[in-house]
Amino acid sequence: MRPRPRVVIVGGGFGGLSVAKGLAGQPFEVVLIDRNNHHLFQPLLYQVATAGLSPADIASPIRNILREQRNTKVMLAEVTGVDTVNCEVVAAGLRVSYDYLVLATGARHAYFGRDDWATFAPGLKSVDDATYLRRRILLAFESAEIEPNAEERRRLLTFVVVGGGPTGVEMAGAIAELAKRALAADFRSIDPRCARIILIEAAPRILTPFTEPLSEAARRALEQLGVEVRLGAAVDDCSCEDVRIGTEVIPTRTIIWAAGVMASPAGRWLGADTDRAGRVRVRPDLTAPGHPDIFVIGDTAVSTDVEGRPLAGVAPVAKQQGQYVAKALIARCNGRSIQPFRYRDFGSLATIGRKRAVAQMGGLHLSGLPAWLLWSAAHIYFLIGFRNRFTVVLNWMWSYITFQRGSRLITGLHVRPLDDVARTSRMELISKES
Amino acid sequence: MRPRPRVVIVGGGFGGLSVAKGLAGQPFEVVLIDRNNHHLFQPLLYQVATAGLSPADIASPIRNILREQRNTKVMLAEVTGVDTVNCEVVAAGLRVSYDYLVLATGARHAYFGRDDWATFAPGLKSVDDATYLRRRILLAFESAEIEPNAEERRRLLTFVVVGGGPTGVEMAGAIAELAKRALAADFRSIDPRCARIILIEAAPRILTPFTEPLSEAARRALEQLGVEVRLGAAVDDCSCEDVRIGTEVIPTRTIIWAAGVMASPAGRWLGADTDRAGRVRVRPDLTAPGHPDIFVIGDTAVSTDVEGRPLAGVAPVAKQQGQYVAKALIARCNGRSIQPFRYRDFGSLATIGRKRAVAQMGGLHLSGLPAWLLWSAAHIYFLIGFRNRFTVVLNWMWSYITFQRGSRLITGLHVRPLDDVARTSRMELISKES
Repeated sequence: MRPRPRVVIVGGGFGGLSVAKGLAGQPFEVVLIDRNNHHLFQPLLYQVATAGLSPADIASPIRNILREQRNTKVMLAEVTGVDTVNCEVVAAGLRVSYDYLVLATGARHAYFGRDDWATFAPGLKSVDDATYLRRRILLAFESAEIEPNAEERRRLLTFVVVGGGPTGVEMAGAIAELAKRALAADFRSIDPRCARIILIEAAPRILTPFTEPLSEAARRALEQLGVEVRLGAAVDDCSCEDVRIGTEVIPTRTIIWAAGVMASPAGRWLGADTDRAGRVRVRPDLTAPGHPDIFVIGDTAVSTDVEGRPLAGVAPVAKQQGQYVAKALIARCNGRSIQPFRYRDFGSLATIGRKRAVAQMGGLHLSGLPAWLLWSAAHIYFLIGFRNRFTVVLNWMWSYITFQRGSRLITGLHVRPLDDVARTSRMELISKES
Repeated sequence: MRPRPRVVIVGGGFGGLSVAKGLAGQPFEVVLIDRNNHHLFQPLLYQVATAGLSPADIASPIRNILREQRNTKVMLAEVTGVDTVNCEVVAAGLRVSYDYLVLATGARHAYFGRDDWATFAPGLKSVDDATYLRRRILLAFESAEIEPNAEERRRLLTFVVVGGGPTGVEMAGAIAELAKRALAADFRSIDPRCARIILIEAAPRILTPFTEPLSEAARRALEQLGVEVRLGAAVDDCSCEDVRIGTEVIPTRTIIWAAGVMASPAGRWLGADTDRAGRVRVRPDLTAPGHPDIFVIGDTAVSTDVEGRPLAGVAPVAKQQGQYVAKALIARCNGRSIQPFRYRDFGSLATIGRKRAVAQMGGLHLSGLPAWLLWSAAHIYFLIGFRNRFTVVLNWMWSYITFQRGSRLITGLHVRPLDDVARTSRMELISKES
């Protein structure tokens, strides 16, 4: 028996990190495991994908964030399963035993059973996704510049974003600004301002979590930026050269997928009951049914508000759930119990390029510049690390004044694959915990 | 016949870019071709490899640098050969004809006939090299943190830098500072301050372009940082688990190659006479022998100073050669000829971590803090782009005060290889120039 119970947290996103922070100085031994070394501020990931920010501006090493927290250990390893009988987490050759387990492993994009589309329509969840999309988008302009065939040039300069949620809207707006402003004067054979940016949404309006007038304001703002918004349009097929909507064919070389997510396989590890998106249906105290010592939070879980509606997969939900789990663990060790989790909704924000956004906070509905200022303030405030806040503010001021984008790098073009040496030294050497 | 002669420049490094800039507003049609979309400030690349700076801080899109220059077109393409008979440059399915050609394609690291070492001892020439090394270095600490075997832990925490030139010295110093300061408090099982950093140099002293007292000052500064400097030591073998020097075996998982370079294959494209490092032996006016309309500059060429000594492969040589070629072209079009190229040596600088450097400028020899201030000022001054200068200064101030490093990201761990779609859309579509 350990002198202090061990809490193993899988995932260093908004959920996992807030559990760890909530246990600072408490009589627990905390182990946070993540497959990446960094916590990522996902709400700004689209700015990395569109060359506005560098990856390091919105990511911080998890062990650096938690460096002052002496009861917490951070491990870089990919978890592949949970042994609920022996209370162990399995990560590439390694077994880490737990008294309490928190699964906060997030979600990936999903293609509604059409996984073959993943090649043609990459999504945006990780730093590598973002630099990959940045490479694809910038390469499309570069290829168009040296392309003699007018039809192919047109195809290269057509960008299709699938999904009218916040990520899709932000991506479409940012690509439009990239094409119409930042790149405008840099090419000789093509005019980047002629690029076509198309946002496809199957529902009758974009940004469905917002009210209809705000959805409408967002749509108008996108159209002012030159984005074609296609509502009630479902994608029937994707390929390396076009998108099909019913009988209509849109020739394009760049499709960006922002239409659906699928939870990480944590539900399968537990053999738990999940919804169609693979999310574990948790109990009101966020534990997995039948596993009172295993909590599932964030995008990996589906929990409901007081009216029984499922909560959205957004950062504030994951954060509040993480804070709740930390409190629940502390209470349990003191022999107390606490009330079921209850989400406090402070509202929703989405941006559509510089100076335009929509905000909905209780009775307060904003659009245009006031919403954008609120959006900026909130995102700066919630970014982790003073240095990141500072550099992001500077970057935004810079691009606000000059219309330039500071991170227009195409990397990974001539890269060797992560070679066996690096992989071996990390994977094989991870043997049984001593 | 073109109304204005076309100058094709291959390579957007220091040499190629200064030719292009020297031809601004001149009666030439300028085409600059590079396999990357960015100009890279190589002297600071070691800071990307050691997590101090982000790639975008030291790289700028070439077409953005040259955007105001209306006579200049930038192409992203990989050149694979030169057809000197038809005066055409061949780049993946594309042929670009020239009246004058400038080859400024740089160099890669070389392994003295032991190319199999490349896997174990990666070098540092591109952004992708730098993020790869950063990943390797940071992963070594991460792997050591979860490694139960003490011997293997020691191996993971041993870093060997091969080559005591400026890059090797800078890398060794920066890794030492990373281990002993930035990472010091972030781990629980290991103490990063115990990391061994070994610099191996075959010559009897490091930084041979400097005077002996400055070499000695640099060695002492490295040792103060905790670097073991091994002089007169030649590497006999590298593997994924050790470096061999004679009969001595140094167990290590991270070897960094900074020992030798080999010119790009431009010499082969011309069938020209090259030295052992593949550099074209150019004429005093920097043209390739037998090709009066083809200039070869920078690391791709070997030219000599007035005393017949070969010039070093450093940025100022490439820059001055580029400026010279631009002047020579303008003179030629006006029916004039100009004097042979002559390098003006303003001195040499190398840094050894924060606050320490060596500088040698004519009779002025500096070490310690004064040299470091000079080094910082020079590097900021020569960085391209106001924004980059600004962010680099801020980053340096930040890490100077806090000892933190802002870019400790491990990326590319779960990355898909550059997929066929992206590759196809760039490569196959590049067809014959219209």
